[in-house]
Amino acid sequence: MKHILNKETQGDYSYGIGPHKDPVLRINSGDSIEVHTLDCFEGRVTSEDVKPSSVAVLPFVNPLCGPIWVEGAEPGDALKVDVLSIKPVGPQPRGVTALQQYFGLLGPKATSLTEPYPEIVRMVDITEEGVVWDEDITFPFEPFIGTIGTAHRVATINSLTPDNHGGNMDLPDIVPGSTLYLPVRAEGGLLYLGDIHACQGDGELCGTAIEMASITDIKVELVKDWHLDWPRLEDENRIMSIGSSKPLEDAVAIAYNDLIHWMVDTYGFDKYDAYFILTQAGRVRVGNVVDPLYTVGAWIEKKYVEKKKK
Amino acid sequence: MKHILNKETQGDYSYGIGPHKDPVLRINSGDSIEVHTLDCFEGRVTSEDVKPSSVAVLPFVNPLCGPIWVEGAEPGDALKVDVLSIKPVGPQPRGVTALQQYFGLLGPKATSLTEPYPEIVRMVDITEEGVVWDEDITFPFEPFIGTIGTAHRVATINSLTPDNHGGNMDLPDIVPGSTLYLPVRAEGGLLYLGDIHACQGDGELCGTAIEMASITDIKVELVKDWHLDWPRLEDENRIMSIGSSKPLEDAVAIAYNDLIHWMVDTYGFDKYDAYFILTQAGRVRVGNVVDPLYTVGAWIEKKYVEKKKK
Amino acid sequence: MKHILNKETQGDYSYGIGPHKDPVLRINSGDSIEVHTLDCFEGRVTSEDVKPSSVAVLPFVNPLCGPIWVEGAEPGDALKVDVLSIKPVGPQPRGVTALQQYFGLLGPKATSLTEPYPEIVRMVDITEEGVVWDEDITFPFEPFIGTIGTAHRVATINSLTPDNHGGNMDLPDIVPGSTLYLPVRAEGGLLYLGDIHACQGDGELCGTAIEMASITDIKVELVKDWHLDWPRLEDENRIMSIGSSKPLEDAVAIAYNDLIHWMVDTYGFDKYDAYFILTQAGRVRVGNVVDPLYTVGAWIEKKYVEKKKK
Amino acid sequence: MKHILNKETQGDYSYGIGPHKDPVLRINSGDSIEVHTLDCFEGRVTSEDVKPSSVAVLPFVNPLCGPIWVEGAEPGDALKVDVLSIKPVGPQPRGVTALQQYFGLLGPKATSLTEPYPEIVRMVDITEEGVVWDEDITFPFEPFIGTIGTAHRVATINSLTPDNHGGNMDLPDIVPGSTLYLPVRAEGGLLYLGDIHACQGDGELCGTAIEMASITDIKVELVKDWHLDWPRLEDENRIMSIGSSKPLEDAVAIAYNDLIHWMVDTYGFDKYDAYFILTQAGRVRVGNVVDPLYTVGAWIEKKYVEKKKK
Repeated sequence: MKHILNKETQGDYSYGIGPHKDPVLRINSGDSIEVHTLDCFEGRVTSEDVKPSSVAVLPFVNPLCGPIWVEGAEPGDALKVDVLSIKPVGPQPRGVTALQQYFGLLGPKATSLTEPYPEIVRMVDITEEGVVWDEDITFPFEPFIGTIGTAHRVATINSLTPDNHGGNMDLPDIVPGSTLYLPVRAEGGLLYLGDIHACQGDGELCGTAIEMASITDIKVELVKDWHLDWPRLEDENRIMSIGSSKPLEDAVAIAYNDLIHWMVDTYGFDKYDAYFILTQAGRVRVGNVVDPLYTVGAWIEKKYVEKKKK
Repeated sequence: MKHILNKETQGDYSYGIGPHKDPVLRINSGDSIEVHTLDCFEGRVTSEDVKPSSVAVLPFVNPLCGPIWVEGAEPGDALKVDVLSIKPVGPQPRGVTALQQYFGLLGPKATSLTEPYPEIVRMVDITEEGVVWDEDITFPFEPFIGTIGTAHRVATINSLTPDNHGGNMDLPDIVPGSTLYLPVRAEGGLLYLGDIHACQGDGELCGTAIEMASITDIKVELVKDWHLDWPRLEDENRIMSIGSSKPLEDAVAIAYNDLIHWMVDTYGFDKYDAYFILTQAGRVRVGNVVDPLYTVGAWIEKKYVEKKKK
Repeated sequence: MKHILNKETQGDYSYGIGPHKDPVLRINSGDSIEVHTLDCFEGRVTSEDVKPSSVAVLPFVNPLCGPIWVEGAEPGDALKVDVLSIKPVGPQPRGVTALQQYFGLLGPKATSLTEPYPEIVRMVDITEEGVVWDEDITFPFEPFIGTIGTAHRVATINSLTPDNHGGNMDLPDIVPGSTLYLPVRAEGGLLYLGDIHACQGDGELCGTAIEMASITDIKVELVKDWHLDWPRLEDENRIMSIGSSKPLEDAVAIAYNDLIHWMVDTYGFDKYDAYFILTQAGRVRVGNVVDPLYTVGAWIEKKYVEKKKK
Repeated sequence: MKHILNKETQGDYSYGIGPHKDPVLRINSGDSIEVHTLDCFEGRVTSEDVKPSSVAVLPFVNPLCGPIWVEGAEPGDALKVDVLSIKPVGPQPRGVTALQQYFGLLGPKATSLTEPYPEIVRMVDITEEGVVWDEDITFPFEPFIGTIGTAHRVATINSLTPDNHGGNMDLPDIVPGSTLYLPVRAEGGLLYLGDIHACQGDGELCGTAIEMASITDIKVELVKDWHLDWPRLEDENRIMSIGSSKPLEDAVAIAYNDLIHWMVDTYGFDKYDAYFILTQAGRVRVGNVVDPLYTVGAWIEKKYVEKKKK
């Protein structure tokens, strides 16, 4: 069955991921959903003259759709989310990025005694052919889901923070064609998503990718009795574990550690053998180094692990 | 002119990079050198029964060739090092990797109160076809220079540490076909190199790649009056700045910051425009997260920057 | 007016700090409260043979009393909490500490591939004369509030994490005689507290102080229109700002930065002059280096700042 | 025997600590030395109008006296350094501090894209009564040795960096009356010192304490066969281990870990018992959070450990 989660069915957007908000949609395992997402500024940065600080005030930023209740989901299960497609919506220029006052890896930190950064907004045309930066530069259109996660039992995590629930991972691998696995910790799973990026470099350096409103199609299946500590991702050629922490090396450690457990539990590797193999063939994607926690994906090509699973 | 730097011409290997050791070779800009490097254990781990801790005792590990004096090199210049080829040498199994007692991202830290890790050594065959791990898994042979750097004016840095002089970066991009730029800080440049890896995953997870002795051919040219704060790398399609620090996010910041300055100084970008563009199209390679400082390379494809340079 | 918040009036304890739980008590500014707190294990570690991992399962650890609604408290206000007294309760040995599986600064990290730590429980007698460790060592009884904080607008933060709402700061300065200032972000302020420690060293090294159930008396006043970014503390001789972050240097930066703003806004210092003065006379207490975020207090003696306020 | 190490006997000052410089003085165990130190700017900031960046250019900053050769010192020994007295020298105002361009915990980082900090110099009178900041504020005169360390076998470490050799620890506990223990790693020990501070807050917030030239009297004894991994300090009431690393929590871990080993090896504690006791009674001093590595001292009062040593 296919559902639509749009402005009307969503009602108020959510600025957190947790167990405290009533579900806006109830689905069965195997259903697909067309999700109408807003951009991280909730569409309020309508021209290059609008200062983000004047329209996006903490904690009311990065609005998410959800929570989506999955029938039968219980703590200890997992959600399998296939990303089917992501389409940009709205009039051109429909993409926005910005330097913000105390945000971004190379800007002044909020704890510094320096002046805030100048707020510079850039709005750009996005089509499925590309993101037009200027007359010389067009970035490829490689859209992905910036924020997606499931509820904890007790905590509601603000929508800017990634952690072991997923959340604001800003990881450019969550693209159409990929499958994300998320832990179920609260009844119904309670899935939230939003914050689509038209493209993004590794690390999301200045803190703001090419942000856009979207229609994002996903399919959600329930995997019973699969305990996940951290989100995982799979695509045609790779398995990837996703860690979020600070400092960044801790996120790398989380992701590789989880990947070793995946190799041991699912593919039958010896723990130390997996450790050795990832030392020689593991790869790391730096998702973000700008959010309250930083996110990396650590992966290995399936060709290495599937030979083992005889 | 082509030089050979082998065991005889090297004499004692160096366990540090600095201005205090007499040059073992003097070359002119444009000369090439065939460098005979040892593995990081100085060839002493001769079987899987040898414990690394019994033969490689700090600070006498990771032996380097050099220093190589480049005529005319003065502080404020740069060395351009073309990596021409890397060949494995020695009888099979000529590759070695190991779990060490308090080393590696997922092992016990030296400051923990836990027991040390078991020392497990693995020796493997290396040919130009691949690195044979076991009956199922062969890693591609993708050799690179693990440690290469130039002397500071005052400090001698141990050969395990990467920093703004290069050093033990363990960055898998320093491969044949690539060009590395290193700052000259002391008279003659004083280039050191060694620690060849037959292959390595991102981060060098357990702390030891597939280590091997090699014959490594490089060509060295002097670039006058090009002040570099950090090492840079160029290959057919990319320009990359290399940062080393701890925590890992600081290495990312260093690398991206230096890349912005490269884009501004050499390609004519506006500083904030470069910052925006790397946010959308910059890429990060995690070299190591196990050495005293961690190393990343941040790069952008040349197609983005060369259009600007009209 | 004096209120009592005990097991009966509390009902279910809270494992998070946020706006989503109904107040268990409503007070007016100036009221005092006798709060009956449980220890961090909810009293379930009843002997040295009980393994913490068997009775305290995440996220249901560190139970807190609250939320307490303060009439008239609105976002932008602050709560002034005077700590009046802390008394241990329950039969001897009423204090408990423990080594836990993956907790503590010197134990194995959860991301390591090593074995978990042995779970060792120690129970000790606590009187107002001291904490009896063994025949040779008695620690002074210096009880303080380990966890105290107010609700965010959107997020519910688990009770193990300190942040800009206060929370699990584990800062040994929140003792009887001190005054803590907390930001009001949600209507009613919504104050939570618990996790009393009979004593604790700097950093709470192994992750567990001498934990105890208590009767803790506090007085709460509303300070209108005093915007706080972070908690602050005042006692007879000092003003202290409290920062929580990770890495630890970021917590130091937060605390000192906030203290500079306090010196500028309340005492009339020039920003750079305050920066200079704290460089020479600022002091730092490391609260915890074991929780999800680390906490420090940065302070200056009042004698330095009060002279300025003429 | 008493030696004098002044400008004449020193000759060129040293900007690094290592085995590569010839000894400027040779002493026997038990000798004392009157050391004439310069300030960290080598006396070149002679008025508040001098910009530090114009006179102190890396790596030629923080000049040190030494190396001092101690007869008979061999790797595996330790040096016991009693700090006897520290006296300010030179005409008033003889103290200097400064905001520097990219230095200090709250200033812009070198990797930020922001403008550098304004360079603000403050010069102050120092007497043994106090450091006169302004008409309202006089800091107590609490002089200590900012930089002191011994040579590694291979590395020469620049004089700005603290590490396991000591170095630029900027730890306000190395005062007259205290005893510092340093590892001997190279023949002769090769002791260097300098960088006296008239006073300093925890963390050396802006990066520059009240810097002054001095006459510093020390006494040096050789302790045979006492292997130290990190510096240690002892005074009337405390034993303290000193760790330097980054992030700051790693320095805390190093210091506490070393202190546990001290308690185990010298005082006979069980390892886990020491871990527990420091959790309840350990104290942490944050030395610096501004140098290339950060320094902390972790200590325990002797009254706790000496009871054990029966």
